Amino acid sequence: MARKIVIIGGVATGPKAAARARRLDPEAEITLVEQGSFLSYAGCGMPYYIAGVVKEMEELMCTPAGVVRDAAYFKGIKGINVLTRTRALSIDRQAKEVRVMNLETGEVKTLPYDKLILATGSTPVRPPIPGLDLGRVYTLGNLEEAAAIRDALASGRVEKVVIIGGGLIGLEVADALKTAAQTYGREFKITLMEALPQLVSAQLDADMAALLAKHLRTQGVDLRLSCKVLRLEGDEEGKVKAVITEEDMVPTDMVIVATGVRPNTALAQVAGLRLGTSGGIIVNEYLETDDPDILAGGDCVENIHVLNGKPIYLPLGSTANRHGRVLGANVTGGREKFPGVLGTAIFKAFDYNVGRTGFSEKEARASGYKVETIICPNPDRAHYYPGSKPIIIKMVADKATRKLLGVQIVGPGEVAKRVDVAATAITLGATIDQVANLDLAYAPPYSTALDPLTHAANALRNKLDGLAQSLNPLEVKERLERGEDLLLLDVRTPAEVEEIRLPYPQVRHIPLGKLRQEAASLPRDRDIIAFCKISLRGYEAELILKSLGFTRVFFMEGGLAAWPFEVVKGK
Amino acid sequence: MARKIVIIGGVATGPKAAARARRLDPEAEITLVEQGSFLSYAGCGMPYYIAGVVKEMEELMCTPAGVVRDAAYFKGIKGINVLTRTRALSIDRQAKEVRVMNLETGEVKTLPYDKLILATGSTPVRPPIPGLDLGRVYTLGNLEEAAAIRDALASGRVEKVVIIGGGLIGLEVADALKTAAQTYGREFKITLMEALPQLVSAQLDADMAALLAKHLRTQGVDLRLSCKVLRLEGDEEGKVKAVITEEDMVPTDMVIVATGVRPNTALAQVAGLRLGTSGGIIVNEYLETDDPDILAGGDCVENIHVLNGKPIYLPLGSTANRHGRVLGANVTGGREKFPGVLGTAIFKAFDYNVGRTGFSEKEARASGYKVETIICPNPDRAHYYPGSKPIIIKMVADKATRKLLGVQIVGPGEVAKRVDVAATAITLGATIDQVANLDLAYAPPYSTALDPLTHAANALRNKLDGLAQSLNPLEVKERLERGEDLLLLDVRTPAEVEEIRLPYPQVRHIPLGKLRQEAASLPRDRDIIAFCKISLRGYEAELILKSLGFTRVFFMEGGLAAWPFEVVKGK
Repeated sequence: MARKIVIIGGVATGPKAAARARRLDPEAEITLVEQGSFLSYAGCGMPYYIAGVVKEMEELMCTPAGVVRDAAYFKGIKGINVLTRTRALSIDRQAKEVRVMNLETGEVKTLPYDKLILATGSTPVRPPIPGLDLGRVYTLGNLEEAAAIRDALASGRVEKVVIIGGGLIGLEVADALKTAAQTYGREFKITLMEALPQLVSAQLDADMAALLAKHLRTQGVDLRLSCKVLRLEGDEEGKVKAVITEEDMVPTDMVIVATGVRPNTALAQVAGLRLGTSGGIIVNEYLETDDPDILAGGDCVENIHVLNGKPIYLPLGSTANRHGRVLGANVTGGREKFPGVLGTAIFKAFDYNVGRTGFSEKEARASGYKVETIICPNPDRAHYYPGSKPIIIKMVADKATRKLLGVQIVGPGEVAKRVDVAATAITLGATIDQVANLDLAYAPPYSTALDPLTHAANALRNKLDGLAQSLNPLEVKERLERGEDLLLLDVRTPAEVEEIRLPYPQVRHIPLGKLRQEAASLPRDRDIIAFCKISLRGYEAELILKSLGFTRVFFMEGGLAAWPFEVVKGK
Repeated sequence: MARKIVIIGGVATGPKAAARARRLDPEAEITLVEQGSFLSYAGCGMPYYIAGVVKEMEELMCTPAGVVRDAAYFKGIKGINVLTRTRALSIDRQAKEVRVMNLETGEVKTLPYDKLILATGSTPVRPPIPGLDLGRVYTLGNLEEAAAIRDALASGRVEKVVIIGGGLIGLEVADALKTAAQTYGREFKITLMEALPQLVSAQLDADMAALLAKHLRTQGVDLRLSCKVLRLEGDEEGKVKAVITEEDMVPTDMVIVATGVRPNTALAQVAGLRLGTSGGIIVNEYLETDDPDILAGGDCVENIHVLNGKPIYLPLGSTANRHGRVLGANVTGGREKFPGVLGTAIFKAFDYNVGRTGFSEKEARASGYKVETIICPNPDRAHYYPGSKPIIIKMVADKATRKLLGVQIVGPGEVAKRVDVAATAITLGATIDQVANLDLAYAPPYSTALDPLTHAANALRNKLDGLAQSLNPLEVKERLERGEDLLLLDVRTPAEVEEIRLPYPQVRHIPLGKLRQEAASLPRDRDIIAFCKISLRGYEAELILKSLGFTRVFFMEGGLAAWPFEVVKGK
């Protein structure tokens, strides 16, 4: 008899699992249940739809060939039954049935299953802030809401927007609003409020997040870190008119709440399936729940981190798709494993690319590693090639094994490639020595002769091998603030110094070319921290001074390029 | 006593080795000998200088901070002695001395060494074609020649250019001439002659090279494959005016010969150092020649291929730089290993990006592997995101171990990232199953939810697991030409078919959505080869027909996107 497969959830994981199951079992009866109206849409595309970069909502629901993936498509092409506007009410695990209700007609029926897949997704968190039910207050939970935001922007009645939440989605929305200026013919005034003292704390360490924050501010975003929102206030029409924080009142025409998502687990919970500490449904490496006939994937489950084997809630579109393929195999007699996640992520923020994979320094330390890190800026391609732009890499390695643990990259240059190479290297257990020796593709339009990732790995090797002593900008800043008696040695050319410099009396300027001659005038009883634009010359300066017998010499990682604090510009 | 290090060759490997040696040994006496006038320049940048994309030759000799790396720079900043316009005449291995001659003054002297590095580079091959000594016939061996080409282009007297050699450099030059139209305000008529029946045979298999050839022809290049050049003919001023091939006479105003390079090994050979079968100097994994006090790297040595451990001559700028770092360590008491090369390469060709790494199918078979391959097109980022462009991936895996052996990618979309991920995966011994499960960075501006490389790996897994049967376009074409009784099943929409179609009577059109109903009319005693635009629907069609009991069904890999032969456009 044909195998009966029921799949609850029709956005990403569900349709992918259904399609894969169909390929592997032409006979199976496959039923896909979705409570919304839309199927198989690109949720990650919503910010670009809001921005108007994606013109029509249908584009998010089409195959690359331009065919809309609706119920008729799934039935006609794939032989998959789809019930939209249908909610799963409960699971009878004994009888192996799901009770579902048609939300249009109210009709209730039961669907028998041999294998059930839960792909129920996630819902935006609504933080306990009074006023969230006012008009023009949105989350970005589904296409309907994306459409409402777009309508509101197009109405001409929105000028000021407050985004609550400086995580990945909050930043994607901020970026979308910036881009939206072209679509709607007006600039939007963006205020971004984040409760923590840094942006995207799940993705970046404080030092890298500070670079991103600095960039957003130069782009006109009113960025408020460590900002506690007390409540929203509405006008007489019931539309939001202000956000009240602990500090002040911020007038606004729209609020977008992006304070994370939580897994939709009610159905699983009522059915007695186990949830993890992260809140997601627990699945094993075959994506089976504790009932082997019920599998789950996508935003409703918790994942296992590849590096430490620990559970982590990390809902991402890419993971949802990879889950779908494994689920499709394992409900049709297969035994595929899902190897876990690395926390790889990337987003665009005002012409900066921001990416990361593996452990941040913070995560690595929390996991018990003794780590060494480096911050290393580099042009993304041959510096003489037009369009070459900088990127700043932070690399984290395990001191004991020299294994690469994580990478964070920020900058206007090409970031995605280096993140993906690092993700591959980390997954396969590479040391930074192996990363440094990768035979990566070089031609001037694509890279530097030694790729920036290779450069970073080499710089980190130098640190691990005791060939270089360095401090990152945050450490330097902290030591300055503690009033330590440092000497900051700026080894750039006079012309560079005239353009931009650090605003501290501890700074001494000696161009690198004169350092050997003038070194005698430098103190041997104070820490000297050498820097330049990116600290390649800073490192050279350290080596020159060490060769002259200085011992208390460091270079400042990343130089001015990675300095996220104030500078003085011009003479 | 200070260690004496002499380095012969000042372009890429030499300066890199010198700088690294200096960092590791502040006391060493380091002398760099270069016969040309220029030091430490980006040879790989020469095509972009010719194109005028790089404006000034100095840019190729500057640090990212804009400082020219001349003798004064090396002396002042690095404490390295540089002798330019100085040729190494011979090595006395007993006395450990190099005899050098100043090419300006004729003065000869000897430089004693403890460790000697040969970084003598390579020279363009001059094929035995009569007429190569005519005016306006160039190779691209050094900056002086690049400047001469640029002057000739700027003179306004060059309109037609023949490039002899369809390898990597030949294509970079062709691309430069295309770009040069903007710089010089005129289009150049480009003829590209290649003796072999395909382009870039060292990099691509015939099927992928055919896609590149097709693209060049659409861009107006007069591409002649299997073309034998007999001689060049000059005008009364001694300037080249025509290239005579076995077929015809091609009038021209300039000829650029790009038929490969050979390693400069005369000095090594006379000193009795061993050369390999590839012609390069043999070095071990520490880059030592058979004299342990003489090391060598860059374009003058042969490398070891990571995959089969066999020697290969593969001169590349990236390798030269990686060699330099290892050399610098190993002449200062270090013991670093160079792990070999993968043959990773990338180039730009008329807005196509072309990259490869590892073994091509041809190389893998020659190395004794039983391979499975797939050709898989995909948009480079979310298909609804503006600027999304296609790429076509060919992936090669070892049937026995399922290890990834190689990747070739061609197309207008983002190629470098996928090549670098593949290079990393191959180096670290990944199977295609591991590649399929990599947690790569996804957001719509950067990738598809499952990266194209993941898609290709999954398609290849389907083939290896017997879930898919497919033929690549070359195989289909060959079977058609042999007159086999095939049925080509086009499952695209009628609108797509009206735009473009295959010009064969064997083609039958049934849109995928109607296939289940109309399948009964298809023959069961002939091979059916289903295809669409990229053959995702072609694969669906195969599965539908198989579920209906058809056995002789295949899909055509890559669909029309990867079809390098003639098509019919319009009604």
